[in-house]
Amino acid sequence: MSQQLAVGIDIGGTNTKFGIVDRRGNILCQDRMSTKAHEEVTMFLAELHQRLSKLIEQVGGIENIKGIGVGAPNGNYYTGNIEYAPNLRWKGIVPLANMLQDLFNLPTVLTNDANAAAIGEMTYGSARGMKDFITITLGTGVGSGIVANGQLIYGHDGFAGELGHVIVIPGGRLHPGTGAHGSLESYASATGVASTALELLEARPNEESMLRNHTREEIDSKMIYEAAIKGDKLALEIYEYTGKVLGEALANFVMFSSPEAIVLFGGLTQAGDLIMRPVRHHMEKNLLPIFQNKVKLVFSELKESDAAILGASALAWEMKD
Amino acid sequence: MSQQLAVGIDIGGTNTKFGIVDRRGNILCQDRMSTKAHEEVTMFLAELHQRLSKLIEQVGGIENIKGIGVGAPNGNYYTGNIEYAPNLRWKGIVPLANMLQDLFNLPTVLTNDANAAAIGEMTYGSARGMKDFITITLGTGVGSGIVANGQLIYGHDGFAGELGHVIVIPGGRLHPGTGAHGSLESYASATGVASTALELLEARPNEESMLRNHTREEIDSKMIYEAAIKGDKLALEIYEYTGKVLGEALANFVMFSSPEAIVLFGGLTQAGDLIMRPVRHHMEKNLLPIFQNKVKLVFSELKESDAAILGASALAWEMKD
Repeated sequence: MSQQLAVGIDIGGTNTKFGIVDRRGNILCQDRMSTKAHEEVTMFLAELHQRLSKLIEQVGGIENIKGIGVGAPNGNYYTGNIEYAPNLRWKGIVPLANMLQDLFNLPTVLTNDANAAAIGEMTYGSARGMKDFITITLGTGVGSGIVANGQLIYGHDGFAGELGHVIVIPGGRLHPGTGAHGSLESYASATGVASTALELLEARPNEESMLRNHTREEIDSKMIYEAAIKGDKLALEIYEYTGKVLGEALANFVMFSSPEAIVLFGGLTQAGDLIMRPVRHHMEKNLLPIFQNKVKLVFSELKESDAAILGASALAWEMKD
Repeated sequence: MSQQLAVGIDIGGTNTKFGIVDRRGNILCQDRMSTKAHEEVTMFLAELHQRLSKLIEQVGGIENIKGIGVGAPNGNYYTGNIEYAPNLRWKGIVPLANMLQDLFNLPTVLTNDANAAAIGEMTYGSARGMKDFITITLGTGVGSGIVANGQLIYGHDGFAGELGHVIVIPGGRLHPGTGAHGSLESYASATGVASTALELLEARPNEESMLRNHTREEIDSKMIYEAAIKGDKLALEIYEYTGKVLGEALANFVMFSSPEAIVLFGGLTQAGDLIMRPVRHHMEKNLLPIFQNKVKLVFSELKESDAAILGASALAWEMKD
C-alpha cells in the first residue's frame, strides 16, 4: 500500500504549481507559489521545500511517495537540468532534479512542460492506453510531446518534440524570440492569433469588424474569440486561417509518426469548433489517402488547472524502481 | 552455431534481389529476378521459391537460417501485407509475409523498403550503435525510416515515416502521383531535380547552359550532374535549390525527433558535396540554436547494390525468438 502517491511540480515562468496525486489521477492536495519572485533558484527551492513538506505531511509522510516528477521550461529528461530557459530568471544550466532529490530524498525526474503534459494525457487523459500519439499545447507558445511505441520521444539529446518551431510557411512571419521566419508558433499561439488579426485589419481597411473598436495594442486572443462568437466575420476568418496553418502542420506530423490521436490543449482550444473545424478540414486535405480519416483529433480531457500537476506527477510512475 | 544466417529479400517495382547474410553483414550468396514479369504474386513466389531454395542449400540448409526479412513497397510491418502498392502489378492487399512463411517454413518479417534500409543502417551501416536517427532515400522517389529510442517508428497503423510526402512549400509544385502541392518528393527526387531544371531553363531564357543542348524530355538527373561537375552555372544552381528545399525539410525533421544523425542514400547522393553542402547549410540555418551543429549529416556507407538485401535481412535479427 505504500508508495502509491507521487508529487507533481509544474514550473512556469510566472507561477509554480505542485500537488500530490494518487495512481488514479486524483490530486489529494495542492499549492502554488511565485516562480518569478525568486531571482535565485536556491531561494525558490527554500520556499518550495517548506510548502511541499507540509503537503507531504498531510498525506502521511515521505514513505507514501514514490517520487517527484517535474515539468519545466527547457527541462532535459536525460540530464535532469533546466538548460538556458528564456522564460526563467535562473540563467544557464540549473541541475534542478538533483537539487530536489537532495532536498526531499526522493527520486526525481524532470522533463519539459510539454513532454510532461504528454505523459499526463497517456496516464490520466485522452490518450489513455495509446502507444502512438502527439500532444500540442496552443498557449502563449506552441509546445508538443510525441509518444511512439509507448515511449516519449526525447531524441539523442533530450530536446525532441519542438513542433512549435517547425517552419510551416518558408519565409513567413518573423518569430521575435527565435528569429525564424514562418514557424508554427508564429501562427498557432495566442500571440500568433493576435498577429493574424492585425494583419487582416490592415489588409482590409474597408471591412467592418468589432475589433476596430480597439487599439492595435489592446487586441488579444480573448477579444478575438468574443468577436467570433458574436459572428464577427473578420474574427471568424482569423480562426479559419489559424486552423488552416495548424491543420497543414498536423498533416506533416501525421506523415512523420502516424499517431492514433493528436491531443490539443491550451488557451486556443477554448474556441472549440471555431478552431477545430478548420484544423480537421485542412489536416485531412493534406494527408496521403492511407492516413485519411484515421487520426483522432481531440481536445484534452484534463482540467486545465490540474493538467500540469497531473502531467508532472505521472513522470514518477514511469520511473524504474 | 546454428541460425547464424538470415535471408534478405528486397522487392522493387522492376526487380527483386535476395541473398543470405551472416551477422556481420557479409552477403554469402545472392541472386535476382524480375518482379515485373509476374502478373500474379503466386507465379512470382514460385520462381522465388525455386531460386532461393538453391541459395539455402548452398549455405547448408534451412537449419542455419533464423528467418526471412522482406523490404517491399507499401509493406506493413504489423500485418505482413503489401497494401495497395502503386508500383507493383499485384493489386489490393497481398499477405506476402504469411505466404513466404508457409512456403519456406521460416519466420518472416516484412516492412517497407525505406524502413528496411533504416534497420540495415543501424545493424551494418552508418548508424551502427545509434538509438536516434533518420534515413532518407533520395531516389526516383523520396523515402524515409525513423528510429527513436532504438526502435523503428511504425506508428499506430504501420505507415509512419512518409517524409517524402511532407509538404515543404505550401501551394508548391504538383506531385502527379498524390495530387499534393509542394511535397518534398516533388523537389528532392530524381524527378524533382529534372523538374527544377525545366523550370529554371524556362525562367531564364537568356542564360546559357549545356542543358540547352537537349530536349525537355531528355533532361534527367544524370545529365544535370554531368553538367554541374563541368561547372555549368545553371546545373549548379539546380543543386543549390534542391539542397535548400531538402535542408529546410531536414531542419523540421530534427525539431521533431532530434536524431543523432541523418543518413542520406540513393541516386542523388552521388552528387556528393554538390548536394551535401547546400543541404547542410540550409538545415543548420533553420534549426533552433539548441539543435545547431549537433546532427551528423552523412551518406550511407553501404554499397548501393547490397544495401537493400542487407536492410531486409537485418529485420530477421530483430525478430523475437
